[in-house]
Amino acid sequence: MDASLICHVGLIQDGKPFVIPTLHARDGDNLLLHGSAASRMIKHAGARPRSVHHHYAGGWAGAGAASVFHHSANYRSAVLFGQGHMADAAEKNRYLKIFTDKLIPGRWDDARQPTELELKATSVVVMPIASASAKVRVGPPGDDDEDYALPVWAGVLPMQTRGAPVADPLLRAGIDLPDYVKEYIQ
Amino acid sequence: MDASLICHVGLIQDGKPFVIPTLHARDGDNLLLHGSAASRMIKHAGARPRSVHHHYAGGWAGAGAASVFHHSANYRSAVLFGQGHMADAAEKNRYLKIFTDKLIPGRWDDARQPTELELKATSVVVMPIASASAKVRVGPPGDDDEDYALPVWAGVLPMQTRGAPVADPLLRAGIDLPDYVKEYIQ
Repeated sequence: MDASLICHVGLIQDGKPFVIPTLHARDGDNLLLHGSAASRMIKHAGARPRSVHHHYAGGWAGAGAASVFHHSANYRSAVLFGQGHMADAAEKNRYLKIFTDKLIPGRWDDARQPTELELKATSVVVMPIASASAKVRVGPPGDDDEDYALPVWAGVLPMQTRGAPVADPLLRAGIDLPDYVKEYIQ
Repeated sequence: MDASLICHVGLIQDGKPFVIPTLHARDGDNLLLHGSAASRMIKHAGARPRSVHHHYAGGWAGAGAASVFHHSANYRSAVLFGQGHMADAAEKNRYLKIFTDKLIPGRWDDARQPTELELKATSVVVMPIASASAKVRVGPPGDDDEDYALPVWAGVLPMQTRGAPVADPLLRAGIDLPDYVKEYIQ
């Protein structure tokens, strides 16, 4: 949760599910969201009972297998459940400092502090994390034993930075990186 | 939508909102999702009326302003609405090729094709896009005029690759990159 830069908030409105991407921070066991005081997402998350907030942590990489079927994605994902409330005016400044310092450590003390009007225009939602679940996939693809005999390159392709592919440690020797993967990383 | 690597599907279960991150592809005006035939998300998205699917496109960068208040995020976001149905067995192979070639162009023809058993274990949800909305923020931060007089660095910090900061074109001359931003990009 701390490693991810954005989260996705799930809301129900008029019987329909909505998903709103937003920034988040953490204060102890509380998830913090913030936004314009006029934002539908912020009003909803701070007022509705049974609001559930989900959180997706980035840092994923695609895992390519010799078989189409065993292609997969490496990722870290966390889902947080709870019920939010609006932060008191007195707490707001402290929460906004936590937000700023999470995204750019050291930034709060350098930039101009919020005026009273700016603080009024910004709402902070505090959601005590009632429960949470996490899911992770790491490592090379999991091909069927017989597929490792195929002359097909397999391994991990980092997606976030389009970095250099890491060959599957189980890959047979002498199988070069295909041209389309070389193009992919340029 | 085509540029993003993951999407977030919104579902309602037992009156509560759920958000599930997953891969997606597009076939004309149809959003495609896929997963294990046993997946709750896939069953739900393919069977329930009024399912709404939302989609968040990546490629965002944080915009740092001289004032704390005007810090913002650059991003591209698309939300898609519609009602999904399960793909016929006859169409499934074509849809899975679209998926594979979107993530790693050229991969489908190189890797081993799915067996009949593997196809049975995989479900594809087809959601005709009934409506959609998109939101974009680009460019430098929008500071208040008087804040440009402050001796505070402002500009865009690319988040996805942690690349080199781009100074705000309105920044006064002679304001160096602060140490905490130099640390940030290492």
